[in-house]
Amino acid sequence: MAPLRVGELPPATIVRLEEDGPAVVLLDQRRLPDDVVEVRCSSPAEVAEAIRTMVVRGAPAIGIAAAYGMALASLRGEDLLEAERVLGASRPTAVNLPWALARMRDEPTPERARALHEEEVERCRRMAAHAVELFRPGTRALTHCNAGGLATGGYGSALGALRTAAERGLLERVLVDETRPLLQGSRLTAWELEQAGIPHAVIADSAAGSMMARGEVDLVVTGADRIAANGDTANKIGTYSLAVLAAYHGIPFYVVAPSSTLDPGTPDGSAIPIEERDPAELTDRFPARNPAFDVTPAQLITAIVTENGVHRPPYKESLR
Amino acid sequence: MAPLRVGELPPATIVRLEEDGPAVVLLDQRRLPDDVVEVRCSSPAEVAEAIRTMVVRGAPAIGIAAAYGMALASLRGEDLLEAERVLGASRPTAVNLPWALARMRDEPTPERARALHEEEVERCRRMAAHAVELFRPGTRALTHCNAGGLATGGYGSALGALRTAAERGLLERVLVDETRPLLQGSRLTAWELEQAGIPHAVIADSAAGSMMARGEVDLVVTGADRIAANGDTANKIGTYSLAVLAAYHGIPFYVVAPSSTLDPGTPDGSAIPIEERDPAELTDRFPARNPAFDVTPAQLITAIVTENGVHRPPYKESLR
Repeated sequence: MAPLRVGELPPATIVRLEEDGPAVVLLDQRRLPDDVVEVRCSSPAEVAEAIRTMVVRGAPAIGIAAAYGMALASLRGEDLLEAERVLGASRPTAVNLPWALARMRDEPTPERARALHEEEVERCRRMAAHAVELFRPGTRALTHCNAGGLATGGYGSALGALRTAAERGLLERVLVDETRPLLQGSRLTAWELEQAGIPHAVIADSAAGSMMARGEVDLVVTGADRIAANGDTANKIGTYSLAVLAAYHGIPFYVVAPSSTLDPGTPDGSAIPIEERDPAELTDRFPARNPAFDVTPAQLITAIVTENGVHRPPYKESLR
Repeated sequence: MAPLRVGELPPATIVRLEEDGPAVVLLDQRRLPDDVVEVRCSSPAEVAEAIRTMVVRGAPAIGIAAAYGMALASLRGEDLLEAERVLGASRPTAVNLPWALARMRDEPTPERARALHEEEVERCRRMAAHAVELFRPGTRALTHCNAGGLATGGYGSALGALRTAAERGLLERVLVDETRPLLQGSRLTAWELEQAGIPHAVIADSAAGSMMARGEVDLVVTGADRIAANGDTANKIGTYSLAVLAAYHGIPFYVVAPSSTLDPGTPDGSAIPIEERDPAELTDRFPARNPAFDVTPAQLITAIVTENGVHRPPYKESLR
């Protein structure tokens, strides 16, 4: 592929279905920003493997990829129950995955998958329009991991809010946690911010608290992988620490996520399955533990923004 | 060099003066654990460069290396004031560096430097004997960066306390922050713990809060680079976040450091110079900020352990 030079990634660049083939084609997010290459998945099992190995990552984007995977299964005349099982087992934490699979169950067509993709991107734009009210002129934001177009199939959740805030002249700059072990911050978020022309600086994850203490952070904004009925939120490992640090420093902590990330069937964070990934992502030389997510309790979250508005505690009522 | 297979690194393996040459010989800590190689410094300027580029790091070890650097200057008949100036300018935060240079001023001999080295290691053993009273059977500790033999010229400060606790059967295991960007935790501390036979697991720095929330951390213990008169403590970036997180979870946070790390001339943490290192240590692709240290306010530190005992707040009195 030619180098992408865009202010905003076209959704079909991140994930698309090609009926001629057929195949689900994914931008390989493991190799960004150094290499802009695609991975072609010719079967639902290959889509599942691409989700598991994080060719595509980000809760909404995982759901979108799985929806295309069901359309692919249908085009290939595969056993749809088996396809849904394989896709659904690819990663455990993001609820957008079972959500998208359930939405495809009645009509696993390319049209339905594309509509789901478009709706998710549209949700991002509506979220951003709500979230921008949380910004004041000169806001210096801090974000973690990647909740951008790459994570959501286009535009972005937390990063979508940052885009809109920048367009309105409200954003001074973004501190980007590099986000170990897979560096979604310093590889993906910094890349998207660069393309959007938004001033930014990568920091070590462990430097966030120090930046807050120096008075360099006005708000923290992240995406989410699953939001329980009470507002407890699973997101990339390190999000919980940021929320504790933000509370300690009196800095607002915001979650921006589409309604596909809400899980009313899970009462609170203790019931959210947390994926443990290969310790070799950290080190292959010594014993290691590598939880990919953590849970931030609702009481540490200042507001949750969905396409329906800015929700404040108590979330059990406001998210309903 | 042959692979080191020792429970504890011999001090001369970490840093030594060879009068035949003469040279200061340093174990290259940048290349551990993959390669066990030495760097020979034939002039004080080369010792300063080795300190600056972190061939040797850790506040007490920097002081020891600088002391040997002064002895080297004397053996070579160099201008001692200039040698002291060059060595003193190599890194700004660890107070052990000016402390060691001041101790060498009257008598910059190999004997004096070796005595300073031996005294620092002896201080570590005495610190550990005091710190062990903070451990209970089954203690699960968390540490950050490397405060081991490598950082102190032998035995270790925080890691020395962990060694002694393990010998007394009080330590269940150690969670080791990998410590970005230079990975002193996953390269150096894990290596020392492996050699000492102490069970351990490396985690992402951002996972520490989540481990505390899960109830997997009984205490946090770190070293220090400079302790102000009021107990405010500069240490590796991320230490401050750990202290906030420990306080939030009601977990004790201990600093273990020799008296050479105390800086009674600095009233509080705001006066400690914080080194900003090359952002390329994080990423050479995007803008980045890379403070190497942060300051933990005294009120977040449960106790400071020196060779003189376990000091409790108010530190202005107890550290005197």
